[in-house]
Amino acid sequence: MTYHPQFGDIAHLGHIELLTPQFDSSLTFFTSIVGLHECGRVGESVFLRAWGDYERFTLQLTRAATSGMGHMAFRARSSAVLLQLVESLKAAGVAGEWRNESFGHGPAYCFSSPDGHQVEIYYETEKFRAVGDQVPGYKNMPQRYRPLGIAPKRLDHLNLLAQDVKACRLFFHEVLGMRITEQIVFDGDQEMGAWLAATNKSYDLAFTKDRSSAHGRFHHMTYMMDSREDVLRAADILTEAGVAIETGPHKHSIGQTFFLYFYEPSGNRIEIGSGGYLIFDPDWQPVIWNREERSRGQAWGLATVSTFHTYGTPPEE
Amino acid sequence: MTYHPQFGDIAHLGHIELLTPQFDSSLTFFTSIVGLHECGRVGESVFLRAWGDYERFTLQLTRAATSGMGHMAFRARSSAVLLQLVESLKAAGVAGEWRNESFGHGPAYCFSSPDGHQVEIYYETEKFRAVGDQVPGYKNMPQRYRPLGIAPKRLDHLNLLAQDVKACRLFFHEVLGMRITEQIVFDGDQEMGAWLAATNKSYDLAFTKDRSSAHGRFHHMTYMMDSREDVLRAADILTEAGVAIETGPHKHSIGQTFFLYFYEPSGNRIEIGSGGYLIFDPDWQPVIWNREERSRGQAWGLATVSTFHTYGTPPEE
Amino acid sequence: MTYHPQFGDIAHLGHIELLTPQFDSSLTFFTSIVGLHECGRVGESVFLRAWGDYERFTLQLTRAATSGMGHMAFRARSSAVLLQLVESLKAAGVAGEWRNESFGHGPAYCFSSPDGHQVEIYYETEKFRAVGDQVPGYKNMPQRYRPLGIAPKRLDHLNLLAQDVKACRLFFHEVLGMRITEQIVFDGDQEMGAWLAATNKSYDLAFTKDRSSAHGRFHHMTYMMDSREDVLRAADILTEAGVAIETGPHKHSIGQTFFLYFYEPSGNRIEIGSGGYLIFDPDWQPVIWNREERSRGQAWGLATVSTFHTYGTPPEE
Amino acid sequence: MTYHPQFGDIAHLGHIELLTPQFDSSLTFFTSIVGLHECGRVGESVFLRAWGDYERFTLQLTRAATSGMGHMAFRARSSAVLLQLVESLKAAGVAGEWRNESFGHGPAYCFSSPDGHQVEIYYETEKFRAVGDQVPGYKNMPQRYRPLGIAPKRLDHLNLLAQDVKACRLFFHEVLGMRITEQIVFDGDQEMGAWLAATNKSYDLAFTKDRSSAHGRFHHMTYMMDSREDVLRAADILTEAGVAIETGPHKHSIGQTFFLYFYEPSGNRIEIGSGGYLIFDPDWQPVIWNREERSRGQAWGLATVSTFHTYGTPPEE
Repeated sequence: MTYHPQFGDIAHLGHIELLTPQFDSSLTFFTSIVGLHECGRVGESVFLRAWGDYERFTLQLTRAATSGMGHMAFRARSSAVLLQLVESLKAAGVAGEWRNESFGHGPAYCFSSPDGHQVEIYYETEKFRAVGDQVPGYKNMPQRYRPLGIAPKRLDHLNLLAQDVKACRLFFHEVLGMRITEQIVFDGDQEMGAWLAATNKSYDLAFTKDRSSAHGRFHHMTYMMDSREDVLRAADILTEAGVAIETGPHKHSIGQTFFLYFYEPSGNRIEIGSGGYLIFDPDWQPVIWNREERSRGQAWGLATVSTFHTYGTPPEE
Repeated sequence: MTYHPQFGDIAHLGHIELLTPQFDSSLTFFTSIVGLHECGRVGESVFLRAWGDYERFTLQLTRAATSGMGHMAFRARSSAVLLQLVESLKAAGVAGEWRNESFGHGPAYCFSSPDGHQVEIYYETEKFRAVGDQVPGYKNMPQRYRPLGIAPKRLDHLNLLAQDVKACRLFFHEVLGMRITEQIVFDGDQEMGAWLAATNKSYDLAFTKDRSSAHGRFHHMTYMMDSREDVLRAADILTEAGVAIETGPHKHSIGQTFFLYFYEPSGNRIEIGSGGYLIFDPDWQPVIWNREERSRGQAWGLATVSTFHTYGTPPEE
Repeated sequence: MTYHPQFGDIAHLGHIELLTPQFDSSLTFFTSIVGLHECGRVGESVFLRAWGDYERFTLQLTRAATSGMGHMAFRARSSAVLLQLVESLKAAGVAGEWRNESFGHGPAYCFSSPDGHQVEIYYETEKFRAVGDQVPGYKNMPQRYRPLGIAPKRLDHLNLLAQDVKACRLFFHEVLGMRITEQIVFDGDQEMGAWLAATNKSYDLAFTKDRSSAHGRFHHMTYMMDSREDVLRAADILTEAGVAIETGPHKHSIGQTFFLYFYEPSGNRIEIGSGGYLIFDPDWQPVIWNREERSRGQAWGLATVSTFHTYGTPPEE
Repeated sequence: MTYHPQFGDIAHLGHIELLTPQFDSSLTFFTSIVGLHECGRVGESVFLRAWGDYERFTLQLTRAATSGMGHMAFRARSSAVLLQLVESLKAAGVAGEWRNESFGHGPAYCFSSPDGHQVEIYYETEKFRAVGDQVPGYKNMPQRYRPLGIAPKRLDHLNLLAQDVKACRLFFHEVLGMRITEQIVFDGDQEMGAWLAATNKSYDLAFTKDRSSAHGRFHHMTYMMDSREDVLRAADILTEAGVAIETGPHKHSIGQTFFLYFYEPSGNRIEIGSGGYLIFDPDWQPVIWNREERSRGQAWGLATVSTFHTYGTPPEE
């Protein structure tokens, strides 16, 4: 009998590999302005994490010829569930292969999203163990908060561009058990965006329509702060450092998160966010926004910035 | 084969019934100072909810001879899981019975906690449907935010007193699948407190040691705000209204929530909170605090108020 | 010898009279959404105040054929200084006349700004005395905070449109002693904006260039909140009430205030703000912004909304 | 004719000299945890400032045998007013002498408070000029905000202990023109505290009763943040660094400021604060608190910490 994946089988988004042709500048940006912590290097990659991330790393920054995403990784609920999800992928006819353990985690099953994004699922992981002056004052936190730069608390979510939003939405819902929380559907059947959750958060993964003809592109990844004041402070830090803000701080209608978007030096879009709503209802029905509703802009009326619809990494040639 | 309950089977805390010998005063307090919405009356009970609660109600206020908790209710993940949890209860030798549908939800299985608190689990529920001037501006929210009084967003958690904290902790973990997130254990084996979660939140239910000889007592219930500024504003609202604050605003070490405690007119303790951390790790190991660590007070050093250890409802005779 | 007015002679902005052809709607808007308190009626006017305003009123709302400002009023430092300022006005050739005491304050000297705005200066005033459930819990506050609607704390400042910004700036600086804090000067000599302060705040009065040919027009008035979170909350209150936000919340470069702009029903622009910087330096030199600097938009890069440059009340015919 | 000093003659608190027997530890504490900027060294002193302070420095840290305050300095409104204040001091029989220019400012007139605290008043000052990576992104700010440590915005106020609070209050009010904003008076005539302002802030200088027999002692000095969230963040920074918090974060009834108190390594008490109210009324009447009112603790009921009444620097022998 085919395994029927359910909500919770994917425990959470684990990490993202970002590609950068400006490796040194990107690394300096993430460590000194964003305030992430370097926690390892292997080959052409450096591994980074926010102070509140429980795993060894959440961002793998890799020297490359273009910007964009190398891969994204999700942690399964257990090793048994990991195997069941692999069964589910196989039953759905998805090609994939096991990869041996790598930096920070155990064996991972690797496959592609319907739009060609590289995905890994894994269970075994290395939890971060603080030593020395990283030992936290709060024993339920993985690491001491270091007040330097923006210093976000944790990885939150990822947004990808796709030609076929519906295919991606159904894939992560039906094959991997994620919950569909919100959608943008124009004119009754034109899917422009989909938000999916593996947790009680309003989303962990989003797909939005790629208006170019490219495949497998990256829209943004998000680190989270505890308060909207932290996001406002981040806006000042970026402004003082001469980093252009693409849009925000403002509030998304979708997901209700408070957002701030900018680019790291190689052009990958980064978000610093806060808030959003939690979903406790096991019967949650997706909230669907139509063209007219989306034309009203963000929550407080800010027009959605045009680059949000057109710019992804790697950029169009 | 016995069903082995797992994390997620209990979807969330659904509602709490509070008893009050000062019914009219309590009701006025909850509606005009706390800013909850009345949404129904049956017999000696009035039903209340916060603007962000998705179910019909989260607080049942019942006229009674004493203060304290009537019952607490948890919603199961599905109707199938509800039946499995009933099997789990039976397998554990817990006496219980089905109760027909009542205000706002379907059939519930009723039983007692090891300390005698009344518990219900249910699945079918009536979701709140806003009409008229309650229709929200944000379609992913159940109701329009009404800026009157404290106006918390949603029910968050419940704290109960118990003679045997360990028994209660094991019961909700082993029989109902809740995650143990934090504990207070004195001198190696003396359990003074246990925090359990049904969701990614740091807790949904807590038990702390009852230093009286009573059973089945209530410590506090908590409604949540989106920001710490909202909690500070709540402190001003209470102060201006002449309502004594028991302790806070301050930050808990355990759960990392920002807290504010006070009493409704009949003496039941109420908390307005914000924040806390989310747990994504499916392998989370409980964080255990010892006597010395707890002696340091709350997160920023505030001594834990003595009434916190001695006062519950109904009060000792 | 001519009196030489100095900083501090004008103690503060006292009140503003707004004209409205939608009197009932405007009044309902200010009392139930903005959350001001009605404190008196005379003829075609109703008098309103924020809970933290120390005088009897700060907003006079008057039924009229058009929108716009009736007059603005400043309180002098003392009765002796009031007379000296009248001497200063006469010495500058400004026509004016004394008006007997009116609602809430004593005799006022009335004159026009160089652009034709009606101005009053007065000293004697009626301080608000709280009674009943308005008596504050904090005895250093004039009134109890009432948690209904936006509920700003106090009147902050006023922005007027003018054909000749320089003339208005010099008038309030040289004749009335206000401090020039910031300016916008394009191409070396084209004054587009001027900010003036009577207090340690970064401004109490601003003039910006009227790009129409009208005179004496009103741009906006501002009530202040204690925190940026309060402004974000105000944005939600407006959105939920279906009130369109013109721009914000965002941060001004000039004055560093956190802003939110919208229109009351008759079209007068209202701001809810927070923050800004205090000026302690008695030698403060005006900060002058040029065309290029202003082209960068607001503090975090938000483009200044075009209506900000073109819309004032009464609107152009 | 004797000069009659008036409100505004003292423009603001300029700087404070703190003495420390733990010079290196104190300096490291102020630069890396508090996040002040070092801007000069002369002899046994190092000069520090917050990023938003407009003068060259606001804190002079001096190696000494004991803790406590070396001196405090106020800037006069103008050079003419400085001479008038000296006349006022002489007319009041206060001994003093001129001191030549020193680090960061011009000639100062030096004298003692009635309790023996050293005071300087000066007018000429060196304004901070940012160069290199300290040049601010906001041209109306003196320096770029550096997101390292607590990073307060500016010096705010100073609290001193005195045997005769009334004498100190009258001295700064009558001889130097400061405004009396709030007072604590027990049993009709026992002055326990006095708050004075040179600006629109609710206070710039406070005196509280020294319950020891010492003279000239220091209670605390305060650096200010823009938001209460910043103060909560400061509490986490201190906790994570193992610095004990004496009391707070909480809200003062007096002055309405949000406070957080701790000690720098040599034992001088430091406050990080935010908020408070502004006084615009030129006729402000002091708010007087009696014994019963003070017995209610701070704004939200927190008991005033006992060390607040007994500990000052240098400590009692």
